[in-house]
Amino acid sequence: MTNRYSYARRVQRMRGSAIRELLKITERPEVISFAGGLPAPELFPAEDLKALFAAELSENGDSALQYSTTEGYLTLREQVCTIAAERGIPCTPDQVLITGGSQQALDLVGKIFIDAGAPVLVENPTYVGALQAFENYEAQFVPVPTDSDGISLTALESVLAAVKPAFLYVTPTFKNPTGITIPAEKRAALAALLKKHQLILVEDDPYSDIRFRGEPVPAVKHFDPSEQVIYLGSFSKSVAPGLRLGYAIAAPEIIQKLVLAKQGTDLHTGTLVQRVLSRYLASGTAKPHVETIREAYRERAAVMVDALRRHFPSEASWTDPEGGMFLWVTLPENVDTVELLPKASALNVAYVPGVPFFADGSGNNQMRLNFSNAAPEQIETGMARLGKLVCSVM
Amino acid sequence: MTNRYSYARRVQRMRGSAIRELLKITERPEVISFAGGLPAPELFPAEDLKALFAAELSENGDSALQYSTTEGYLTLREQVCTIAAERGIPCTPDQVLITGGSQQALDLVGKIFIDAGAPVLVENPTYVGALQAFENYEAQFVPVPTDSDGISLTALESVLAAVKPAFLYVTPTFKNPTGITIPAEKRAALAALLKKHQLILVEDDPYSDIRFRGEPVPAVKHFDPSEQVIYLGSFSKSVAPGLRLGYAIAAPEIIQKLVLAKQGTDLHTGTLVQRVLSRYLASGTAKPHVETIREAYRERAAVMVDALRRHFPSEASWTDPEGGMFLWVTLPENVDTVELLPKASALNVAYVPGVPFFADGSGNNQMRLNFSNAAPEQIETGMARLGKLVCSVM
Repeated sequence: MTNRYSYARRVQRMRGSAIRELLKITERPEVISFAGGLPAPELFPAEDLKALFAAELSENGDSALQYSTTEGYLTLREQVCTIAAERGIPCTPDQVLITGGSQQALDLVGKIFIDAGAPVLVENPTYVGALQAFENYEAQFVPVPTDSDGISLTALESVLAAVKPAFLYVTPTFKNPTGITIPAEKRAALAALLKKHQLILVEDDPYSDIRFRGEPVPAVKHFDPSEQVIYLGSFSKSVAPGLRLGYAIAAPEIIQKLVLAKQGTDLHTGTLVQRVLSRYLASGTAKPHVETIREAYRERAAVMVDALRRHFPSEASWTDPEGGMFLWVTLPENVDTVELLPKASALNVAYVPGVPFFADGSGNNQMRLNFSNAAPEQIETGMARLGKLVCSVM
Repeated sequence: MTNRYSYARRVQRMRGSAIRELLKITERPEVISFAGGLPAPELFPAEDLKALFAAELSENGDSALQYSTTEGYLTLREQVCTIAAERGIPCTPDQVLITGGSQQALDLVGKIFIDAGAPVLVENPTYVGALQAFENYEAQFVPVPTDSDGISLTALESVLAAVKPAFLYVTPTFKNPTGITIPAEKRAALAALLKKHQLILVEDDPYSDIRFRGEPVPAVKHFDPSEQVIYLGSFSKSVAPGLRLGYAIAAPEIIQKLVLAKQGTDLHTGTLVQRVLSRYLASGTAKPHVETIREAYRERAAVMVDALRRHFPSEASWTDPEGGMFLWVTLPENVDTVELLPKASALNVAYVPGVPFFADGSGNNQMRLNFSNAAPEQIETGMARLGKLVCSVM
């Protein structure tokens, strides 16, 4: 289709449609989908939220429905500081901005740091939504290889010898798409590199709440007294994504710039949903509820890993994450997971091919599997179908 | 303050702080403020919304709290088409995008149309938030003079002879800051110019619902069969701004680009608030409620105009809008409304000086007054104080 209108240059680079189009064929109710990044909806705290919306609208309807400050609801920012402290991040409310999901924080970070053509370092593979957000500011991606314990610091140092990037983007915990977590010592070493190179790190951490095995690891920002880290958190996995609530924690100077950028972007995040979330976090049901989510996902991940072992060929390998929502499968190099997807769809099972997660276009023989959105018995059924298909093309 | 970090070039141009800082001194409870752009909170439909949040969470909690499509909730997009039809705009849901308030639509339009340095035509004066949104994409503003009935088409034609802009931005109805409305014939003439010059118009229309006098005028987009107009609407004035819900209506091709831009920006607008708004619009109380708002604002505007007549010097002039939330006062040229503001604040009354609304820095002797947020008796008291102050400095 030729464009009737003259768009900005960046529009040519806006990505996401090829795979998204492919995935549309999998959006039939009979498909068992491991493709989405959806939390389990049956675990949403709908009844609790219902009572809290009612209470907020009864008691504070005037202010809950009015315009509010760009920074976000102060009580909620204070609660974010409490959550951050549990992850080893000391902070005060002037270091917190409430955002429309952490996706908006990625957009705002792009807005204040990326000039057209500026290098942005990303893990290879990385979260597709971050590539989309930063591409909107015409970032030049420099992919940094990852090891089995996350980003390779040796590779990072080589890149930094040649490039002065706008920032480095990393998802250190239960990373989307691989499920990998960077261990504590490596986080400390990464933080030291940040300081040495005056490098800003965007630490995207939407999943760390959902640890269902192993010991918690402090955030990279825990090792960051020189304030080189912008830490992003989300309530999409621990409460509900349909509220669109996340946050950024950074040096007050950076938060002020993000606030200025957000003013022009959408004035502020919804007042009512912020106030209701604040009530929910204060209610005492929030913490036990996260435990319920962890238990459910622990079972689902275990069922999926067990199914991989039984149904997938011995040449395949996969990650075995300690939390989050995804695991990552590597097939023999001759298996093309983009080509395989329509066949999977014909068998009523879906996944996301590896390619879109790689800034350099690799990942042909890999796939991301989501284990949070399907019931255990569906996971077993879907994985049996998928494993049979994979075996048949090898 | 020196910046410790290296920001993108656009950060230097992010505006809004000087006047915002000035206005902070007026944020004391004892101040009668005509400064904000706030709807009357006592008219928010809090009780109706309370029942609808409860119903939605009881009946559809799973989907209302889940991720959803970037385009927005289909039923709500259909309802937007019905609203648009009443304004003379025929449209189908594929021409509609739900946004986080219409401020987000401004941001997304900037994202898909503005390359750094691209000329953007704006009325002089214009909405500050639009300047902020477009400045984030390094627009080069070309101010177009306005007459007593809105943008000067003669001036527009002269500008178009010299400049090929990314688009023209206009608020044709009860414009922020002046309250002026472009009459129907001039809208048709403007639409003809758009076609002739292949010019895109961003028609920002958050206020037309709140007409409290005179006859409705069709949208500029009504006169736009060649699809040069991107029409932006809002639910912030007719329902409540704290929900952050607005929309864009445009050719499907443009909507598809906006959707792509929005994916990277925040994935989608909040699912629950969209579904609750949809219920509210379907409920039958929405229309009579807008009539209640109109009646209240009609009285407040009348009280303010009457107070201007009685308390302000005869050298002052002002607009007398047929709707919306603002009127605009022009004082003798020797009165500087920026200098006057701290004095007004000392008398516990506030307004917004004219300067920030002008892309070319004029407007020294003008002020924007909001009449929607104060009760009639407060308006009389505040205007008496302000009038006395203005007289004292002449």
